[in-house]
Amino acid sequence: MSQRITELFSIEFPIVQGGMIWTSGWRLASAVSNAGGLGLIGAGSMYPEVLDEHLNRCKAATKKPFGVNVPLLYPNIEAIMDLIIAHRVPIVFTSAGNPATHTKRLKSHGITVVHVVSSTKFAKKAEAAGVDAIVAEGFEAGGHNGREESTTMTLIPSVRRSTHLPLIAAGGIATGRGMLAAMILGADGVQLGSRFVASEEGSAHINFKHSVIQAKEGDTELTLKELTPVRLMKNKFYHQLKQLYSEGASVEDLKAHLGRARAKRGMFEGDLDEGELEIGQVAGIIDQIKPAGVIVQDLMGEYQQALATLPPDFKS
Amino acid sequence: MSQRITELFSIEFPIVQGGMIWTSGWRLASAVSNAGGLGLIGAGSMYPEVLDEHLNRCKAATKKPFGVNVPLLYPNIEAIMDLIIAHRVPIVFTSAGNPATHTKRLKSHGITVVHVVSSTKFAKKAEAAGVDAIVAEGFEAGGHNGREESTTMTLIPSVRRSTHLPLIAAGGIATGRGMLAAMILGADGVQLGSRFVASEEGSAHINFKHSVIQAKEGDTELTLKELTPVRLMKNKFYHQLKQLYSEGASVEDLKAHLGRARAKRGMFEGDLDEGELEIGQVAGIIDQIKPAGVIVQDLMGEYQQALATLPPDFKS
Repeated sequence: MSQRITELFSIEFPIVQGGMIWTSGWRLASAVSNAGGLGLIGAGSMYPEVLDEHLNRCKAATKKPFGVNVPLLYPNIEAIMDLIIAHRVPIVFTSAGNPATHTKRLKSHGITVVHVVSSTKFAKKAEAAGVDAIVAEGFEAGGHNGREESTTMTLIPSVRRSTHLPLIAAGGIATGRGMLAAMILGADGVQLGSRFVASEEGSAHINFKHSVIQAKEGDTELTLKELTPVRLMKNKFYHQLKQLYSEGASVEDLKAHLGRARAKRGMFEGDLDEGELEIGQVAGIIDQIKPAGVIVQDLMGEYQQALATLPPDFKS
Repeated sequence: MSQRITELFSIEFPIVQGGMIWTSGWRLASAVSNAGGLGLIGAGSMYPEVLDEHLNRCKAATKKPFGVNVPLLYPNIEAIMDLIIAHRVPIVFTSAGNPATHTKRLKSHGITVVHVVSSTKFAKKAEAAGVDAIVAEGFEAGGHNGREESTTMTLIPSVRRSTHLPLIAAGGIATGRGMLAAMILGADGVQLGSRFVASEEGSAHINFKHSVIQAKEGDTELTLKELTPVRLMKNKFYHQLKQLYSEGASVEDLKAHLGRARAKRGMFEGDLDEGELEIGQVAGIIDQIKPAGVIVQDLMGEYQQALATLPPDFKS
């Protein structure tokens, strides 16, 4: 089973770099693809003309396969899909929406389609919609997240039992040991977000990258469940939210406080106090900003080392 | 590293059966120990005279090592500890309290002491208190749980980096694949709770066992964070709690609704509507009530099968 992700994407290692808003531009995606993984451009924070430029630059920077992550609730979704088709992007990851709407059209253009889910129920729906593979993302992941709060440890075995599609695990993975553990739980490959936020090529603001490598266990929380659940770093903005909750804030109060462009302000402009900082729990064990290619090499080295130093079989 | 749990407890397999309230009596503990794992009696729901009887019966039912789990916030803690020492119980797992208070006394009687934590910070405190091993329990676990919500996937690597003690992973583990995954993340052994609730020998009410094997993904939630966080099955009692939350209930309102003996009513007396049903997320992939010895054999068979069918090393 486990060669299916490398074969599906024609890549060397079963490592996908998450297509994150404000972080995953052409520099990061091309660096990961050049290192043998699959780089994704995060279209969720790009106007169509910005994505157009990233696609041109990514194609110039790598001859290897790369992809685009598209949140299906994106307001200008048709323009984004048209661009992706016109650029002959080989792989699209869709998230945050119904995969039935766009999968058929993308596949008719020869595009490999992967859908991101946070529950077994939606994994089955994605399979029914005809996607080529599934990303199952656990509660510990950064960014937007499922309401059922299933962790990677419980979600991956459950999705594995429910679909025969190639399966990519996400959430809580930042090392080669985590990668091997996820694959033993039933995944064919892994998607890492937080680990690639702390990369040299990622377009997140350096302030945000520094806060990621300084983060400790317990420094994130899944919140805003009344709107769309999102895992945030516990900064001033987060504590203001908690204060609103303690005062019995309504959904409208929360929306008003969130306002517009909070994520851009935090993750891209580096305002660590007033910005929204989306990151995974696993930030607690990420200590260094590294080139994306070195991250891929480190992951594979740790993975191979873990395979070479397995626990005993306890046979009597 | 990974033989350390079997050596520490003088057992065959690195599998600990969690010492759960209303579920882990002498029948379950002795069955697990007889099968080569470590069975634990859950003292948290026992008056001293009840524990005394369970210790007598457990010693009569097995010549293998077994232990007792003691929540340190137990009201009659001194009587419980006196009993354990008088009975020459070889192993004690402590939880829910400060390990500094009792570890030294237990160890002076030759007892192996293990402390249960849900964060790296408390793992370090337990090491400083002189315990022999640590259980690190992730957010997905049933029962009472940490406020930081660290999942098994992120907690185990973090605790592994912070202490040299033998480490037992708990939370989200119900299969041999989960066991191997946890050990690759850095654990030397595993503790399973929910899987042993659905055992023939467990003392939980048959209604509760049936609800565990019928549970699906998303059927539990960590709640009551204002009191002591606890993962509950989403039954009528849980939905009443959610209703109180939506009405802005105070801590006193929540306590009043919880009342006394809710867990006994649900888990031991089988009232699935009005009782508190503590169970882990992993109930979603538990489908059968089995004898505890068969569960241990299944786990080891799956574990060895997982070791025999590893993913490739992706070396070029």
